[in-house]
Amino acid sequence: MKQTVTFGVDVGGTQIKFGIFDQEGHLLNDWAIDTNTADGGSHIMQAIALSIESVIAKIGLTPDQIEGVGMGVPGPVLEGGVVVEAANLGWKNRNVKEELEGYLSYKVRVANDANVAALGEQWAGSAKGKKDVVMVTLGTGVGGGIVLGGQLLYGSSGAAGEIGHMCVNPDETVVCNCGKCGCLEQYTSATGMVRLAKEVGMGDVTAKDVWDAVKAGDEKALQVAEIYGQKLGFALANVASVINPEIYIVGGGVSKAGNILLEYIEKYYNKYVFAPCKKATFTLASLGNQGGIYGAARLVLGEEH
Amino acid sequence: MKQTVTFGVDVGGTQIKFGIFDQEGHLLNDWAIDTNTADGGSHIMQAIALSIESVIAKIGLTPDQIEGVGMGVPGPVLEGGVVVEAANLGWKNRNVKEELEGYLSYKVRVANDANVAALGEQWAGSAKGKKDVVMVTLGTGVGGGIVLGGQLLYGSSGAAGEIGHMCVNPDETVVCNCGKCGCLEQYTSATGMVRLAKEVGMGDVTAKDVWDAVKAGDEKALQVAEIYGQKLGFALANVASVINPEIYIVGGGVSKAGNILLEYIEKYYNKYVFAPCKKATFTLASLGNQGGIYGAARLVLGEEH
Repeated sequence: MKQTVTFGVDVGGTQIKFGIFDQEGHLLNDWAIDTNTADGGSHIMQAIALSIESVIAKIGLTPDQIEGVGMGVPGPVLEGGVVVEAANLGWKNRNVKEELEGYLSYKVRVANDANVAALGEQWAGSAKGKKDVVMVTLGTGVGGGIVLGGQLLYGSSGAAGEIGHMCVNPDETVVCNCGKCGCLEQYTSATGMVRLAKEVGMGDVTAKDVWDAVKAGDEKALQVAEIYGQKLGFALANVASVINPEIYIVGGGVSKAGNILLEYIEKYYNKYVFAPCKKATFTLASLGNQGGIYGAARLVLGEEH
Repeated sequence: MKQTVTFGVDVGGTQIKFGIFDQEGHLLNDWAIDTNTADGGSHIMQAIALSIESVIAKIGLTPDQIEGVGMGVPGPVLEGGVVVEAANLGWKNRNVKEELEGYLSYKVRVANDANVAALGEQWAGSAKGKKDVVMVTLGTGVGGGIVLGGQLLYGSSGAAGEIGHMCVNPDETVVCNCGKCGCLEQYTSATGMVRLAKEVGMGDVTAKDVWDAVKAGDEKALQVAEIYGQKLGFALANVASVINPEIYIVGGGVSKAGNILLEYIEKYYNKYVFAPCKKATFTLASLGNQGGIYGAARLVLGEEH
């Protein structure tokens, strides 16, 4: 077999991360550049192309050694490569696949960044070898990504896997960033957890403080953890009623709490889930911030391997 | 192109329905036999094989004119053809695909009956030409089926699309047939609707009576319709956060209420759903009780057309 490489690009609002991978999912090299969001983000694609071209020249790769370039973008992406919107970058209805293919003569594939992270974990991380995978990312917001039969799910408007905006409390009156009420993100993002902590009287704390207090047996923190687990367990049980995945991966900053987080999730997942779906396993993400570049590269390879 | 036919079989607890289809989804002939559930349902597969063989002989079909046999079964089915459990038939962990292939020398494919009905609507019914489809069947229970990219979703334990057992009310204390509390089925099946009607003081009525009263403007019935729409709209909005389908099909006995049912669903769907998923359309099923035989036939053809 000819040894070829694939580029994975994770486009963020402040940094663009790059990785070069072999066909088995080994990271050979990685680097990053700053994101220039000036002029509606119109310089970003050219900067990506230039960065890739310069590395190709430096290593001395020939075109037949390059499978292509995969890219993860912070916003909904349609299967054909159109970014519906990426507010952090200033993009709207932009076909970045065609744009990058105009700069580079390689195959380009694009998807949402949270979806791409799920694909990365399925290729080379915690869910390696699993076919049907759901990943939930607990950070400033709550993102999600779904891999079914080894393929990334885009959805008809590019919104598949947007678990953070699943309603978990129809009676909520506090409004989410998305405009509706009762979204999972309002309770289980880092900011959501801080809000829950305030409500039980924990004062000014971070999500990490709360989990540390849970581990120390603090009563108020234990209350927060129960609410946190109830909301997330409820949401993931409902995901099971739809796609019945074999594994759930939990990532993002809040997941640094470790296995205790999984225990609270599983407690409520098992309460709310349809019995045949109790076989699903829960695990922490293992690729950290690099999940995006792994999954982006896999996007290109996923179609032919 | 050689003109071939496919058999679709819908196995129910009292009747087994059969259909012969051409490659474009036209039903050429259909018939039914009674289900013999004696001896743990062990005579069922042979009865199906004999019925198909006798029709093949009667029409005078040659083996090269037959694509295969698809079958819908009332219970969770794994992708390889193992029926995990079909209580109505007495089956448990039974590979009915291999069993039927032992009797007949044709390709056999098997899936859950509600899933298969969704595939039927996607092939030849209300969702013809759509790729990402969710069907919800509102009958004695609530079933569901999901087609993504034109392919039926099985799930890792055969439980994909079990929308009826999504929890829509975490505070419910009444227990569902499945053993947990707050399932969609407890509110939006025909029996669920009768229960809701009792709770608002409508007395002894059927689901049809309630919808007739809704159309006549009866105040208590209008209350029931709001709760009904709220539960179903909530559930389908949460389905959207997972797979973001382009169309929802509503079938089953309760769907005979017509478009007014869709209006109540859409009212609450739009309240709870993530904004990019508002583009989804809602429609009534069009194949009725025959959706099962259509979808079963399509199971066989779906892999190569």
